[in-house]
Amino acid sequence: MISFENDYIQGAHPEVLKRLAETNYEPLSGYGTDPYCESAREKIRRECGCPDAEIHFLVGGTQTNAVVIDAMLKGYEGVVAADTGHVAVHEAGAVEYTGHKVLTIPHYTGKIDPGELKAYLEGFYQDANHEHMVFPGMVYLSHPTELGTLYSRKELEEISGICREYEIPLFLDGARLGYGLMSSGTDVTLQDVAQLSDVFYIGGTKVGALCGEAVVFPKKAPRHFLTAVKQHGALLAKGRLLGIQFDTLFTDNLYFDISRHAIEMAEELKRVLREKGCTFAWESPTNQQFVILEDSTAGRLKEQVVFSFWEKADETHTVVRFVTSWATQKEEIEALRHLDLS
Amino acid sequence: MISFENDYIQGAHPEVLKRLAETNYEPLSGYGTDPYCESAREKIRRECGCPDAEIHFLVGGTQTNAVVIDAMLKGYEGVVAADTGHVAVHEAGAVEYTGHKVLTIPHYTGKIDPGELKAYLEGFYQDANHEHMVFPGMVYLSHPTELGTLYSRKELEEISGICREYEIPLFLDGARLGYGLMSSGTDVTLQDVAQLSDVFYIGGTKVGALCGEAVVFPKKAPRHFLTAVKQHGALLAKGRLLGIQFDTLFTDNLYFDISRHAIEMAEELKRVLREKGCTFAWESPTNQQFVILEDSTAGRLKEQVVFSFWEKADETHTVVRFVTSWATQKEEIEALRHLDLS
Amino acid sequence: MISFENDYIQGAHPEVLKRLAETNYEPLSGYGTDPYCESAREKIRRECGCPDAEIHFLVGGTQTNAVVIDAMLKGYEGVVAADTGHVAVHEAGAVEYTGHKVLTIPHYTGKIDPGELKAYLEGFYQDANHEHMVFPGMVYLSHPTELGTLYSRKELEEISGICREYEIPLFLDGARLGYGLMSSGTDVTLQDVAQLSDVFYIGGTKVGALCGEAVVFPKKAPRHFLTAVKQHGALLAKGRLLGIQFDTLFTDNLYFDISRHAIEMAEELKRVLREKGCTFAWESPTNQQFVILEDSTAGRLKEQVVFSFWEKADETHTVVRFVTSWATQKEEIEALRHLDLS
Amino acid sequence: MISFENDYIQGAHPEVLKRLAETNYEPLSGYGTDPYCESAREKIRRECGCPDAEIHFLVGGTQTNAVVIDAMLKGYEGVVAADTGHVAVHEAGAVEYTGHKVLTIPHYTGKIDPGELKAYLEGFYQDANHEHMVFPGMVYLSHPTELGTLYSRKELEEISGICREYEIPLFLDGARLGYGLMSSGTDVTLQDVAQLSDVFYIGGTKVGALCGEAVVFPKKAPRHFLTAVKQHGALLAKGRLLGIQFDTLFTDNLYFDISRHAIEMAEELKRVLREKGCTFAWESPTNQQFVILEDSTAGRLKEQVVFSFWEKADETHTVVRFVTSWATQKEEIEALRHLDLS
Repeated sequence: MISFENDYIQGAHPEVLKRLAETNYEPLSGYGTDPYCESAREKIRRECGCPDAEIHFLVGGTQTNAVVIDAMLKGYEGVVAADTGHVAVHEAGAVEYTGHKVLTIPHYTGKIDPGELKAYLEGFYQDANHEHMVFPGMVYLSHPTELGTLYSRKELEEISGICREYEIPLFLDGARLGYGLMSSGTDVTLQDVAQLSDVFYIGGTKVGALCGEAVVFPKKAPRHFLTAVKQHGALLAKGRLLGIQFDTLFTDNLYFDISRHAIEMAEELKRVLREKGCTFAWESPTNQQFVILEDSTAGRLKEQVVFSFWEKADETHTVVRFVTSWATQKEEIEALRHLDLS
Repeated sequence: MISFENDYIQGAHPEVLKRLAETNYEPLSGYGTDPYCESAREKIRRECGCPDAEIHFLVGGTQTNAVVIDAMLKGYEGVVAADTGHVAVHEAGAVEYTGHKVLTIPHYTGKIDPGELKAYLEGFYQDANHEHMVFPGMVYLSHPTELGTLYSRKELEEISGICREYEIPLFLDGARLGYGLMSSGTDVTLQDVAQLSDVFYIGGTKVGALCGEAVVFPKKAPRHFLTAVKQHGALLAKGRLLGIQFDTLFTDNLYFDISRHAIEMAEELKRVLREKGCTFAWESPTNQQFVILEDSTAGRLKEQVVFSFWEKADETHTVVRFVTSWATQKEEIEALRHLDLS
Repeated sequence: MISFENDYIQGAHPEVLKRLAETNYEPLSGYGTDPYCESAREKIRRECGCPDAEIHFLVGGTQTNAVVIDAMLKGYEGVVAADTGHVAVHEAGAVEYTGHKVLTIPHYTGKIDPGELKAYLEGFYQDANHEHMVFPGMVYLSHPTELGTLYSRKELEEISGICREYEIPLFLDGARLGYGLMSSGTDVTLQDVAQLSDVFYIGGTKVGALCGEAVVFPKKAPRHFLTAVKQHGALLAKGRLLGIQFDTLFTDNLYFDISRHAIEMAEELKRVLREKGCTFAWESPTNQQFVILEDSTAGRLKEQVVFSFWEKADETHTVVRFVTSWATQKEEIEALRHLDLS
Repeated sequence: MISFENDYIQGAHPEVLKRLAETNYEPLSGYGTDPYCESAREKIRRECGCPDAEIHFLVGGTQTNAVVIDAMLKGYEGVVAADTGHVAVHEAGAVEYTGHKVLTIPHYTGKIDPGELKAYLEGFYQDANHEHMVFPGMVYLSHPTELGTLYSRKELEEISGICREYEIPLFLDGARLGYGLMSSGTDVTLQDVAQLSDVFYIGGTKVGALCGEAVVFPKKAPRHFLTAVKQHGALLAKGRLLGIQFDTLFTDNLYFDISRHAIEMAEELKRVLREKGCTFAWESPTNQQFVILEDSTAGRLKEQVVFSFWEKADETHTVVRFVTSWATQKEEIEALRHLDLS
């Protein structure tokens, strides 16, 4: 059955698998010290325009969020996030497990509003009781957001400016960063992300790798970050598995090309669904598309194609999510044309 | 250069890579719910003789130790381990990070002594102040140990009996379990391990996989263990990566065959080094071999072959470690014959 | 200057100090094992109508909340609370520090709504992703709430019923419990609290003691709770300090009498302020009163009497809080009559 | 029955109780912001010779150790302590609960050896695997130690020098500091402690207060330490209870005078027991005395006087502990003369 369930339903880009096979018998030292890791780092530094960036490879997204947030916060600090943020809802409390509160502010189609962020920080320090409260010690964004939306360059600049004014780091969760950067509407580049944030990651798991996220500290990593990674059980013994994958993804523009492919597939999917009379719950410029279906239609459709339930829209309608990826085939989109969506 | 640095210097057994490639485009659901994970679980249950075992796949060893220990201990409990135990020394405090103390007792070539374990537990409850101390809530063993040694069936039975008497679980770290089970000297089978412990893991990272450890609860996992795994950042989105690997390793006896190969290579390595006059620091029946070299010899040898420094033996001698694995080639052992070890 | 700043601005009820002095030289064993602690426990059990209750004395409120919540939750669980709850806002993240998320639901003048609580729990288990989320493992109420309001017996019964249906404990924070029980409007007794909750505490710090909260487990405490208390740094060496105080407070009805006094003072304060034309932000039947003042009036008043800023009501008005206590004197209320509140 | 059980079996010095009663009705703001806290701080600063010291009052010893250690360590660090250290053995894992390992080194009658400390730190950084281990981030001493012994000024200077060389703070647990400073043998003054350590505390609980420990940062406290204290549930609402007590103890030399009294009583106790033929397990210059008794003698003596079991000395002998305090009366020592210790 055709599946638009999410962007991690398939293995890895074939070039990634090929390189893993080619290098398989080379004896390499562990924990990210091998030359493939170093080569991947060098390529990422170049793409980011940050020759001094420190780069670490972790395995998965929730893990990366928890390790980075814990390593950068002081004990008495929490992380500010949208109330829809992955760290706030869908990580089984991984951030709280590290001892830090997620301080939520309202979202606007997945994004936080710079003005509200500023008001929140101002309000905190004006509160006479703030020493009895959790200090906002970092701002967490995801780009694209949980709802597939993107910040504009101007919004990121504003948020970054607020963080610098309050001297707290800005952390950008880029689990789907490739799909954000290759969106046709965006004016945000990888260099912008590197310049405006204090730490971000380039998602591999959802963009062509078997697993892996590349954490980039554009200026400087927290001291002994590797030990913090180990302490959180997040240091991969065969670091090569991550290094070789990211080295491949950042060779010959592969990461960007396969991300663009997913965007093209998403745009085609939008076209097809619009032609079939579908309404979208909100406008998403990336690879996740949110469609409002009558409950009966959704029920019928489920027999023919895999997608995910997002939320109830009203008594008789449901929001469902279709996701394209590096692996989506044009034929899969075409097949949608023949479905009965009435 | 030939390397005996450790058992994770190479990628994965070629059969594992082949299966990853063959299944690459199948759309599969995430987080360990795919049919390969289920097939792997079923095969492992059969090998363990535990039809009801609950099995979860995690990514790495330190991660597995921290998640399992935290999930099985009550808040006021710690885990008893040998003072050489991996959890006690080389995990950057990952167990303490979960809030639990590692309660160490002396090791005997890497192993704990059943009599001393019993005395420790008895002594704890006899101590009038024990309510002000950390309760021993679990016993942690590794098999093979950090020093390559193995428990006998009788020792495991004694330790298991003590744990059951004190109603605390026995956790066996099997990061190198294959090499232990295939050792020519052992009388311990996988079924024994499953019967005598309350949780153990079958190491993949060091035995032919790119990454992955199969955690086996022979009777019953802690409630909502999957959520605990997620909370620790240890739940892999593409669970298929682990399921396919373990399914392959447990097809046609592969896990055991490649483990036996490593043992044969270790025995050959012992023979060669003995013939060349080497002394061993202690007797190891598994794939890690500890050799005493004169410092000057060790220095010279380092130019020709990779091994690891273990510890100083005395003023002029050093203990070094040679490790074989599923990937070690007979030619690599033969090459040792031609080295100058005088 | 007269102060209505809060209910912990003075020392202890003189009877408490007298008993501390009288018993001062008796050599007593530590950590809550002395006969005064035991006597206090026995008296509290009788008042609660729970002959088997387990009772522990802790020092302060935030401490008690964190220790109780951590001791009763499983690792993967969080605590449900009103978004105004003390644990959610004013404890510097003490609950998150123990690794658990505070799961907030909306408040209605400080209280949670039983219907919304039920909907929250139902919704959680219906969410297909709930295994990736924090399980609701306990419900936290305060009674009186942060806003001075009280649950009715019917509301407590409903909430208790929901907790029992979902098999999660109900925890009632009674930092100001005396003031709630002695409120003229309430139909909730101490026996009701003991019957409907799974753990609660009887606040001493705010009701006549130098410090101390009596934690009551009507049926059964978590195993080795004393060790958990110690582990959190919350076990007082001189347990006598808490035992003697609670023994005194629960002798000859003292706790209830001094609580009733504070309520009478609060009612008198309401009368006086109403007569002077003040408007109340909401109706509070306990010892905290929330008054809306013009900003200029509030500014002037601050020169003559101590109260606390609560929040801005609108552009030109402020909500301020006046608190009475066991120590409030009639003359202090009378003095308010002479203030200029225009 | 006469009791030498420990130094917290009685209430508080009468002057402390008197001041609590005298100030009882003064309305004072909470959390350590009242003028008594400030006055106590000022007096302590003067005694320490540290005009800029930051001083916080906490309630108990285990609490203070956990809060201070957690606030000063970085996430990946642990605290070095003697294997007999209170933090290592008798705090129910309170330090590990904060996520940090206690790194133990051998004790010599309760003390660590400067040379061994230095070797430990050197060895750590020389270990090629140290990034996979817990970094030593602080040194913890108690003075007096658990065994009643004292460091000499020279030893403290050496340890302090090593800490400064390695740029890690030195933390001195002074739960019984008064008894150490007033020991007739010592050459260590309070000013020395303040100069050589980076944080220490002046114990109140065991030296004349109902409860309370004064934490002194001679140079500078960690940022937002008050919030860290709150987060650990250790911030007392009625800070006055601690401020008034320490203000009294540091008025007219009271703290030192009552400490000296305990030492004089301990010396008298030694004399009496020596005259009666007792052997001491080791030489203690402070208020804890460790005596070797025949098991039968110990059994008989228990009927007449309270002391504590320390450890078995051999098959037929036991080490027991006698403790004097600010409250010990000469008559109690005299009474020992009439006991049958044969």
